[in-house]
Amino acid sequence: MIRIFFEDVQKRLAQVLLSHGFSDERALMAARLFAETTCDGVYSHGVNRFPRLIATIRNGCVDPAASPRVVSHFGALERWNGQSGPGNLNAYSAMERAIALSAQNGIGCIAMANTNHWMRGGTYGWQAADAGVIGICWTNTMPNVPAWGGTNAAIGNNPLVIGVPRAAGHVVLDMAMSQFSYGALESYRRRGEKLPVDGGFDSEGRLSRDPDAIEKTQRLLPIGFWKGSGLAVMLDMVAATTSLGNATHRIANDSLRETGLSQMFVAIDPRCFGDAAHSERIADEIVASLHRSDAVEPGKPVRYPGENTLRLREENRRLGLPIDDAIWAEIGAM
Amino acid sequence: MIRIFFEDVQKRLAQVLLSHGFSDERALMAARLFAETTCDGVYSHGVNRFPRLIATIRNGCVDPAASPRVVSHFGALERWNGQSGPGNLNAYSAMERAIALSAQNGIGCIAMANTNHWMRGGTYGWQAADAGVIGICWTNTMPNVPAWGGTNAAIGNNPLVIGVPRAAGHVVLDMAMSQFSYGALESYRRRGEKLPVDGGFDSEGRLSRDPDAIEKTQRLLPIGFWKGSGLAVMLDMVAATTSLGNATHRIANDSLRETGLSQMFVAIDPRCFGDAAHSERIADEIVASLHRSDAVEPGKPVRYPGENTLRLREENRRLGLPIDDAIWAEIGAM
Repeated sequence: MIRIFFEDVQKRLAQVLLSHGFSDERALMAARLFAETTCDGVYSHGVNRFPRLIATIRNGCVDPAASPRVVSHFGALERWNGQSGPGNLNAYSAMERAIALSAQNGIGCIAMANTNHWMRGGTYGWQAADAGVIGICWTNTMPNVPAWGGTNAAIGNNPLVIGVPRAAGHVVLDMAMSQFSYGALESYRRRGEKLPVDGGFDSEGRLSRDPDAIEKTQRLLPIGFWKGSGLAVMLDMVAATTSLGNATHRIANDSLRETGLSQMFVAIDPRCFGDAAHSERIADEIVASLHRSDAVEPGKPVRYPGENTLRLREENRRLGLPIDDAIWAEIGAM
Repeated sequence: MIRIFFEDVQKRLAQVLLSHGFSDERALMAARLFAETTCDGVYSHGVNRFPRLIATIRNGCVDPAASPRVVSHFGALERWNGQSGPGNLNAYSAMERAIALSAQNGIGCIAMANTNHWMRGGTYGWQAADAGVIGICWTNTMPNVPAWGGTNAAIGNNPLVIGVPRAAGHVVLDMAMSQFSYGALESYRRRGEKLPVDGGFDSEGRLSRDPDAIEKTQRLLPIGFWKGSGLAVMLDMVAATTSLGNATHRIANDSLRETGLSQMFVAIDPRCFGDAAHSERIADEIVASLHRSDAVEPGKPVRYPGENTLRLREENRRLGLPIDDAIWAEIGAM
């Protein structure tokens, strides 16, 4: 692991994107979103995933020059076609528009079909909160989790993101519907560790904490068993039926061919009633109430969603972003 | 357990409500929602819970004559005050208005403060789907689950409901953020059964399937451990900050004194773009893809959320609603 300063990371990624069909402005923006993700400590979805973006540009899944297009609009709701553009730029544009719609209508919603992997979902929760609004968004994915009662991957892990603005630190949740991602299973396996809780089924159909056994069966556990399975189905159904895009079962089960995703972006503007300070006080009180919890482990207080991010962001801005040597060498050679 | 026909149940409940301060029309409507809940097989939140509603009218938490009031509105977003009215009538009105707003704006949202327990959340998902729109709603609750990393009940189990319309049977998810409710723990304990999966912590702080042990510690498990805890926090925060209502930490931790809840009701009208039939076809295809799953247990195909409801509804309409003898005697004596 090496540390590279934020600006240098962004500059290098932008250079690579420029040489892969991105315009100047879009290369800088996409590079910024990757660098910010690593800076915020979400290493699995930041710079480490950049080579995968390049691979999906090269294989034609991602069109670097494409921008989303408004297909239809009605009041506070718009339907977009992502036109196979880069998933993070598409998602950022969609949330920008949802925010603008919420300023006009109190609430705004974009349903986007035909887009690509949005990388870190939390990005768009932070984006909404930075703009002073509540952001709620989700995406479907390729089939990568069995539905409850089934053995084959039939539903997506469909990450759901909710962000609430707060001057003292936004509250941002970014969670997939599987208890662990394949990336997380791999990390545990490489470290020779068991999962802290059950993460899937082994070849005997028993609940297991063995990452290797679960990778072999590909029977990941949805959060809350039948509950997360049901929630994943609903998130997929709302996104696909509203955008008229693909549902999970129509998406290729191959991380390099996962394209044509459907996503939802909702923004709610608490400022429309002229008392956003009151809303923020309520959010602050919720955070304080969590901090007052009796801790399971003394000295480890309960945290709110996103609490760790600001500390990591400051640290990584100061020391440089921690990046895997091999990944950085690979990006250097692109 | 006895069986009483739907109409007789509704009539008896309405009589009791009339004698407890409800107007004719509101008594019939509230009685219908209770009877429908039992008819749909959600026995914990239907007629079995009716005596608790009466108790909360008698102790002043629920004002039987109060209707919700619009506090402020801006475009497709409205803020309501539930004025301590009956939770099911309040919620039904709020979803009705969200549906109307979605017809005008594509999407509509009501944030309601100061309301009461909405009984079965799924009611409002079915309501939206019956009206041909997607419904998404949630409520906060009294503190009844520890936040992840804490030992005392600090967050609510905050049920989330999502309904999608379909001529072949609406898809409706109604799920709380705890793996099991206290009502479910009690049912398992009375039957002398263990839980099918871990449901909380025992007095040694170990994950447990023993309903009795979990009832004693009151350390229920959120779905997906840290994930469901985070989602419960966000649902509370969005509902309370948007409605300016109470957050969970301000609600009495006592089921007979649980009042002043905050709720969100969102409707999305797929008909606004003139191609609702296409949306519905996508929903049908998702259902078909789930049914094609390889089943864990041969002969037990994967089900979609709400699939069982229509079967139970038909059966209970035909045979009469199954009602606990003691509860029916109690209601008869009211």
